Amino acid sequence: MGRMTSSSTRSPAASSGSSSAARPHIVIIGCGFGGLEATRALHRAEVDITVIDKTNHHLFQPLLYQVATAGLAAPSIAAPVRVLFRRYPNVTTLLGEVSSVDPAARKVQLKDGMQIGYDHLIVAAGATHSYFGRDDWAENAPGLKTLADAFDIRRRMLMSFEAAERETDPLRRRALLTFAVIGAGPTGVEMAGTMAEIAQHTLSGEFRRIDPGSAEVLLIEGGARVLQAMPEVLSQKALVQLQKLGVQVRLDSRVTGIDGTGLSIQVADGSSQRIDSHCIVWAAGVAASPLGRLLGEATGAAVDRAGRIKVEPDLSLAGHPEISVVGDLAAAMSHVPGKDPTPVPGVSPGAKQMGRTAAANILARLAGRATQPFRYRDYGNLATIGRNSAVVDLATPFGPLRMSGRIAWQFWLFAHVYFLIGFRNRLVVLMDWASAYWSFQRYARVVPNLKEPPRPQ
Amino acid sequence: MGRMTSSSTRSPAASSGSSSAARPHIVIIGCGFGGLEATRALHRAEVDITVIDKTNHHLFQPLLYQVATAGLAAPSIAAPVRVLFRRYPNVTTLLGEVSSVDPAARKVQLKDGMQIGYDHLIVAAGATHSYFGRDDWAENAPGLKTLADAFDIRRRMLMSFEAAERETDPLRRRALLTFAVIGAGPTGVEMAGTMAEIAQHTLSGEFRRIDPGSAEVLLIEGGARVLQAMPEVLSQKALVQLQKLGVQVRLDSRVTGIDGTGLSIQVADGSSQRIDSHCIVWAAGVAASPLGRLLGEATGAAVDRAGRIKVEPDLSLAGHPEISVVGDLAAAMSHVPGKDPTPVPGVSPGAKQMGRTAAANILARLAGRATQPFRYRDYGNLATIGRNSAVVDLATPFGPLRMSGRIAWQFWLFAHVYFLIGFRNRLVVLMDWASAYWSFQRYARVVPNLKEPPRPQ
Repeated sequence: MGRMTSSSTRSPAASSGSSSAARPHIVIIGCGFGGLEATRALHRAEVDITVIDKTNHHLFQPLLYQVATAGLAAPSIAAPVRVLFRRYPNVTTLLGEVSSVDPAARKVQLKDGMQIGYDHLIVAAGATHSYFGRDDWAENAPGLKTLADAFDIRRRMLMSFEAAERETDPLRRRALLTFAVIGAGPTGVEMAGTMAEIAQHTLSGEFRRIDPGSAEVLLIEGGARVLQAMPEVLSQKALVQLQKLGVQVRLDSRVTGIDGTGLSIQVADGSSQRIDSHCIVWAAGVAASPLGRLLGEATGAAVDRAGRIKVEPDLSLAGHPEISVVGDLAAAMSHVPGKDPTPVPGVSPGAKQMGRTAAANILARLAGRATQPFRYRDYGNLATIGRNSAVVDLATPFGPLRMSGRIAWQFWLFAHVYFLIGFRNRLVVLMDWASAYWSFQRYARVVPNLKEPPRPQ
Repeated sequence: MGRMTSSSTRSPAASSGSSSAARPHIVIIGCGFGGLEATRALHRAEVDITVIDKTNHHLFQPLLYQVATAGLAAPSIAAPVRVLFRRYPNVTTLLGEVSSVDPAARKVQLKDGMQIGYDHLIVAAGATHSYFGRDDWAENAPGLKTLADAFDIRRRMLMSFEAAERETDPLRRRALLTFAVIGAGPTGVEMAGTMAEIAQHTLSGEFRRIDPGSAEVLLIEGGARVLQAMPEVLSQKALVQLQKLGVQVRLDSRVTGIDGTGLSIQVADGSSQRIDSHCIVWAAGVAASPLGRLLGEATGAAVDRAGRIKVEPDLSLAGHPEISVVGDLAAAMSHVPGKDPTPVPGVSPGAKQMGRTAAANILARLAGRATQPFRYRDYGNLATIGRNSAVVDLATPFGPLRMSGRIAWQFWLFAHVYFLIGFRNRLVVLMDWASAYWSFQRYARVVPNLKEPPRPQ
């Protein structure tokens, strides 16, 4: 099977997505939180917009771990891009992957050769996994960024239990019942907590030769505490809640190797440990999209170690005011008058706010007004851990509000349902969670892909 | 990646799934409608049961076309096998594919070498696609039997519209907007009707360069009418309803070739036609699982042209009363006292009823009683065509009851929701259908697999 790249080359004019040549053409790369908010902020303006994404859906990434752990079906957290923009007649959607940007010619090139000219460009291409130079680890320790990743992890997790049920060798059976999550940020904590819940509750009574509750879930973290973006007191609470769920948390533990049968870690005293496991999830490293480096080379903009592009206070690039970078691809600073700039964290509210600011600044430029520096409004930080437990660190006008346990979990739940797109999805997610809460069941335990064999032992 | 076959070989004793040697061990191959009903009918008996399936879920196949056409998420029509049997302590579930049966040794062998002894065997391995000897057609004309098939068709259908939006060559664009369904049985009629609905309603207003409503949906049938299992008057009604939805129905048209750019058909007058299309669905031929032929060779049982095994009136095999075959794999006859035996149609009620009869006959044999011949109770036949239209042919004690149009569609809808497994799924499917009915939207329009490139043009 070839790729879409085999299609014919097209003239830039035919591809501009704009029928009225007089209106400025804004190209937006990526339809994550940043690109989606930018499009929404621009669709009423007298501009033509082309949104390019390499998938056909906007993904609500904060709940992706629920798809990976069979709690939600993929369509509940993914909205087709075309549906989102159907009522915006000035928005054209293109499914495609950007291979390069030519700032001199003001053109974006897709992998199949298609070229799209722009007057203004918003790059919101997001982030991918980083294995810190060890890309060979990817095969045996998938990360969690896309729906395909989530299905891969779901399959590995469920198939490990299936293979364990058939395994007679006690050591191999133990390895099949050992699950390792690397990295104790929000995703890692959520994955490990949910995996423990699945082993102890969801699968209970379903197997005849193994006890799924005897499965071990390890959460391996290089730093000294879990959820390092949180205040230390909440890290402590999260640790206790994880341990109560049965998760074995290994702090100060650095991964030194991953292969088809397990992983090696170096613990605090410098000694090495080997952990046999067939289901390893990578939640440790995030790197900006490769487009960051390409754009840095093309424009001369500085790129940081994580591959993010350093942007001007108004999110544009130095020397290229017609290009803005937002979201996880931007090494952006928050500018509060009278204070030193502070770095913007790589969270979805940050991406959304940057998308809106970049859009407003483009409209300001088009109107001949001055642009505004980006100011990040921090509403706080939250992470769920599993059944009835979460930690929440809210920034309120009266100072921080910290919660943990059941009340934090309820807050987390309603905040996520609130930010989901579409009434149908909100309702179904609420229903599925209510049903999972009372029945301990997870209804999306389906491994559809017959063609892909169960993973090797 | 290896297969599960790389696991260790095990002794048959360790694999029998039975802890009490005194109880008869019944092995059931396949957890479709036949295998599921047989297991349910046996789980209260003093027997040990091992159910072997090559997927981890029981699939509600009558609604599979809804997953293919993005109307439902996969988990809504698939129930994990382990969940179905969790409360049956005498049932062991194994994920695996049967490679052979040894009737002399009374053993089933899995692809990975695992052997499972049985006292009684129920083979309910179902059916697969048949390309009438042209297996090379499969690559460009997938059939619809598994969730993987449904995702494949969903991807091809949605990606054809995406590619058409980018295509500038009018002929290629026309080919990308031509959808061909081969075979006008219930699946073909449902697929074609829904595809037309998607083109005309669901995608309306979402594209900027193409009009999805200009897409052509062709339904190609070798016979003289659609839905040949239905009375002729309902075939006529279905034809009119299909045409009203915009489906081009080509009767008396035989497919003579399928390749990466389209298909060739021979029409009634003997002349040939070429249809350029990039989304072809195969709904024409069904063949029994390859296990049929293997079992025929091993037991001497006769196998018909479709690969189905001829069974005795009580669904067992001649000379092998300990082996029963049910569902699409069985060439079974219905025995009504005082009447000539009639063939059982390949529909889900037939499979379910055979599963129950085979189970009852095993229990009769174990108790030393005589077995009963299988009697198929025909409750009728129904097929949906699209929005507000269906045909229903009910067998009632007072004679046939025939419906078409909106009332038939409502009957079809509630019948399918009724037979779905699980309260959650019934509720969500009803909700999704209600939402689709009023909004014309289909919420599962997500193509998750980034790794698989869009199909070639």
